[in-house]
Formats: sequence, structure tokens, C-alpha cells
Amino acid sequence: MKPTPQYAVIFTSQRTPAEEASYEAMANKMIEMVQRMPGFISADSVRDANGLGVTISYWSSVEAIKQWKTQTEHLKAQELGKTLWYSSYSTSICRIEEAYNYPLEISVS
Amino acid sequence: MKPTPQYAVIFTSQRTPAEEASYEAMANKMIEMVQRMPGFISADSVRDANGLGVTISYWSSVEAIKQWKTQTEHLKAQELGKTLWYSSYSTSICRIEEAYNYPLEISVS
Repeated sequence: MKPTPQYAVIFTSQRTPAEEASYEAMANKMIEMVQRMPGFISADSVRDANGLGVTISYWSSVEAIKQWKTQTEHLKAQELGKTLWYSSYSTSICRIEEAYNYPLEISVS
Repeated sequence: MKPTPQYAVIFTSQRTPAEEASYEAMANKMIEMVQRMPGFISADSVRDANGLGVTISYWSSVEAIKQWKTQTEHLKAQELGKTLWYSSYSTSICRIEEAYNYPLEISVS
């Protein structure tokens, strides 16, 4: 069973219309890499037809999030994000205080 | 200027393929109502072609979130969500510890 997530990173972004192939290649690479990071638990990612996207990643600690934020390949992706792929984005690092699911209801203490 | 959000609610949901008209009507009603709730700051909502959606709402306090959670019309919508519109969902109430934006970089202390 996976550990209960203690932290969530909310990444909201607006894609530019350009650079689809390079964006997809990098996005796939980042998904592959983040899954190998210590403390990474899971992620949900959604983008609509207008290019607005939200990715939530779940983590065991802030330290794990900081390690991913400063990981070399991820830093390169962040730079390209600013120059090529995103017209705007926001990132929030959040501590999960309570969580519940349907059908199964669970609590995070 | 809007107050700095202190809390975020992450609502991740999978829509059933059915009941599109009733869902849209209720979703619009909820958007209208939540904007009048004390402590509500803003929201971002994205759903993809497969029916996976993420809505992030930003709040000034946990108390404001609890008031919205137990608001009468919202409770009705939650019940209908379980029986009609969603095959599954999860809700996380989170305290924002750090936030930054591109182009403008800001910090939440």
C-alpha cells in the first residue's frame, strides 16, 4: 500500500499553442523521472481543449518536493517551460490537512 | 486586490458519461454560489475529454471552507454528485505553505 500523502503540489499552467511535440516529449520524460524520486507518491494531470492544465502531485515531505524542484533535468524543463511552453503558470506547495474519497472515505490526520 | 489565499481545496473527480444537462446546470449554480461565500478567493477548474476533472478553490481560512462544505444547496449537490454525476472523487483540504507564479513571482508566508 502506498504511504499517505502529506503534501500536495498544485501546478496550474496555460500552454502556448506552439511546440506540441517538444512539450509532449519533455512531459513524458518528467513523468518517468518524478516517479523515481524518493517521497513521490502519485499525480493527477488534466488539460482541457483551451490549454489550461492542472497537475497535482502528492508527496511524503517538503524535502522530497524541494529535491524534485532542484533536480537537474527538471530545472532544464522549468526553463524551457518559461521560454517555450507556458504563457503563465502558478505553483503552490501545500500541506494536506484533511482528505476524503468517494466511494471509499478516508481521513488524513 | 484580492487577499492572499491561505488554503486550497483540491477536488478531483471522474464524471459519469450521463446527465450532462443536469450536471452543467448544477455546476453553474455552484460557481455562482461559491463566489458569494465569505472567505472564497478564486477557483480554477479543468476537465479533459475523458471526463477527469480537477477543481482548485482558494480560501482565506478553514472555517470558510467548512461553511461552504455544509451549505444547504451545496450539500444537495454533493448528494447528487454521488448518485448521478461522479463515478469517483477525492477532496483534499490543504494549507498553502509556499506559492510562486510565472510571469510574476510572489511568495506566501
